[in-house]
Amino acid sequence: MTFNISPPDSANDAGIQAHIDSRLKPPGALGTLEATAASLVRILGPSSTTIDAPAMLLFAGDHGVAFEGVSIVEPSTTQLMVHHFLEGNAAINVFCRQADLALKVIDCGTLTAHEPHPQLVSHRLGEKTAPFHREPAMTMEQLDTGFDHSRRLVDELYADGCNLIALGEMGIGNTTSASALMAALTHLPFEVCIGAGSGVTPTIMKRKQDIVQLGLQRHAQSLEDPRLTLAALGGFEIVSMVGAILAAAEKGMVILVDGFITTVAALCACRIAPEARGYLIFSHCGDERGHRPLLDQLEAAPLLHMGLRLGEGSGAALALPLLRSALAFYYEMASLEEAGLTL
Amino acid sequence: MTFNISPPDSANDAGIQAHIDSRLKPPGALGTLEATAASLVRILGPSSTTIDAPAMLLFAGDHGVAFEGVSIVEPSTTQLMVHHFLEGNAAINVFCRQADLALKVIDCGTLTAHEPHPQLVSHRLGEKTAPFHREPAMTMEQLDTGFDHSRRLVDELYADGCNLIALGEMGIGNTTSASALMAALTHLPFEVCIGAGSGVTPTIMKRKQDIVQLGLQRHAQSLEDPRLTLAALGGFEIVSMVGAILAAAEKGMVILVDGFITTVAALCACRIAPEARGYLIFSHCGDERGHRPLLDQLEAAPLLHMGLRLGEGSGAALALPLLRSALAFYYEMASLEEAGLTL
Repeated sequence: MTFNISPPDSANDAGIQAHIDSRLKPPGALGTLEATAASLVRILGPSSTTIDAPAMLLFAGDHGVAFEGVSIVEPSTTQLMVHHFLEGNAAINVFCRQADLALKVIDCGTLTAHEPHPQLVSHRLGEKTAPFHREPAMTMEQLDTGFDHSRRLVDELYADGCNLIALGEMGIGNTTSASALMAALTHLPFEVCIGAGSGVTPTIMKRKQDIVQLGLQRHAQSLEDPRLTLAALGGFEIVSMVGAILAAAEKGMVILVDGFITTVAALCACRIAPEARGYLIFSHCGDERGHRPLLDQLEAAPLLHMGLRLGEGSGAALALPLLRSALAFYYEMASLEEAGLTL
Repeated sequence: MTFNISPPDSANDAGIQAHIDSRLKPPGALGTLEATAASLVRILGPSSTTIDAPAMLLFAGDHGVAFEGVSIVEPSTTQLMVHHFLEGNAAINVFCRQADLALKVIDCGTLTAHEPHPQLVSHRLGEKTAPFHREPAMTMEQLDTGFDHSRRLVDELYADGCNLIALGEMGIGNTTSASALMAALTHLPFEVCIGAGSGVTPTIMKRKQDIVQLGLQRHAQSLEDPRLTLAALGGFEIVSMVGAILAAAEKGMVILVDGFITTVAALCACRIAPEARGYLIFSHCGDERGHRPLLDQLEAAPLLHMGLRLGEGSGAALALPLLRSALAFYYEMASLEEAGLTL
């Protein structure tokens, strides 16, 4: 399946910057909020001056490698957290309510299926991925199905007036998968790409490093192609996020990236379709070891630096008010000229 | 005038931290939002679980030193900006609307008085301060009147159910005054304390440094006492902010600090009454040179790092949603025990 993505129209970039510089403030005085405003206006164009019907898409999936001792947490925690997301009492629920952000939980393939729920989207690609250090995590058919599911989901949101999706994820073992993808796609040393996840012991850290190394060796021949890489080392939730990014970029929507795992999905999407990069806004730089170098690879200047390391989309939800304020200053502030002022 | 300030009750600190650590997340995974939650809960106590009727107090004042070539901007800009704050089209208006934050503009003494306006509070201490490198910026009577005005303002807000004040300021020349105060109270080298303000040339920077140095020399005998220091080197808006901080601390309210100038006011307040420190939340670290070392002096870990350098209270307004989210996660999230989980 292919996505027809055009980069955001940069024809008016100089005009956008001139508008920002001419607001009633010294040039640059709003720091990174100014670049955020420029990106949002470039993506949304002049006809959308507000963020409309934003949706947090929280993708959950289980990982074969989670059964290989790469986490201090039981694999069944993925399912348990999905239950709590639907109950409404996890961190992401709180932050979505605060930010007036609709939440959808997408079951991309967890150990068992969940009872139907209005906020649950069942897009299962299996029970869990295969352990990627022994075999490809999934087939190319599963990857294509994941892309297809996400495109339908995003297209429906778009049709309902949504112009921003935020990305969140849950999946025990997914920092291991994400680290492997980062190492494969950036060629950075794998130690740089592997961090503590939800918390590790030295033994678990060693196991994560071994599994990533084995995975990179086993799939060495797939690593020239980003789709093959994604199928070999990815997770169901990561693949589904990549599909959502590509679909949202195709529709010209704003894509708000969360922490390390979602940033890896962003990297994968940009390797498949570099034109998608311009639709991405990076909400925060978290505490997971690989996040900073990964953001650097994407030339991303995230809004928040709060030492977050929860995932779930928490940083994206926390940053959404800043995006609204960025658009609002662009469209609501007086100009220096109107004020009769030069700064 | 004296303020009767008790530090926030720390008797339940261990209980607050245990509650945070037992939420449905790995310990520490919400980064600086966790310390913010702890501070807010400590200040507000168990009976206030939300931020109620928050008010942005934007203090404006003119400075004698502004006529000595310390800014690229005309002194009359203070008045002009007050006009725009009341018109509702400056950055702080946009951000207050976005954050559902009431805005009051306090004229603490600008070149001429303003027409009455529902959002304007006239607490004028004069037309402008005296140039502090030649004489004390104000008298002790003016300082006391400023404190008294602010206490009445804060007491009224408190009586109306407000439990958080945010601080903002406007005053051409006030980075020069703030830098002098910082140097006097911290004994840091004055070069560390003096930055670009709204923008400077090398000539203006030299002039700022000369004036600060002259001011420190002239008032050397006053600099052992923080009130005398404040009267000698301060601004009407800075003094009024210090009064607001002390009054809000007296009432047990949350005090949300903005950029360099408001942080200097926070420092002054803490030197007058160290018990006030526990009521302060620092919204951001901005781009003004002295802000980072000043925050370090106050052992402050601000929430945002966005390269802001506008003042007006802009960073405080942008950070307010994070404070709401911090309280909300504390009171609305399930516990690990309820989830049957150990992390």
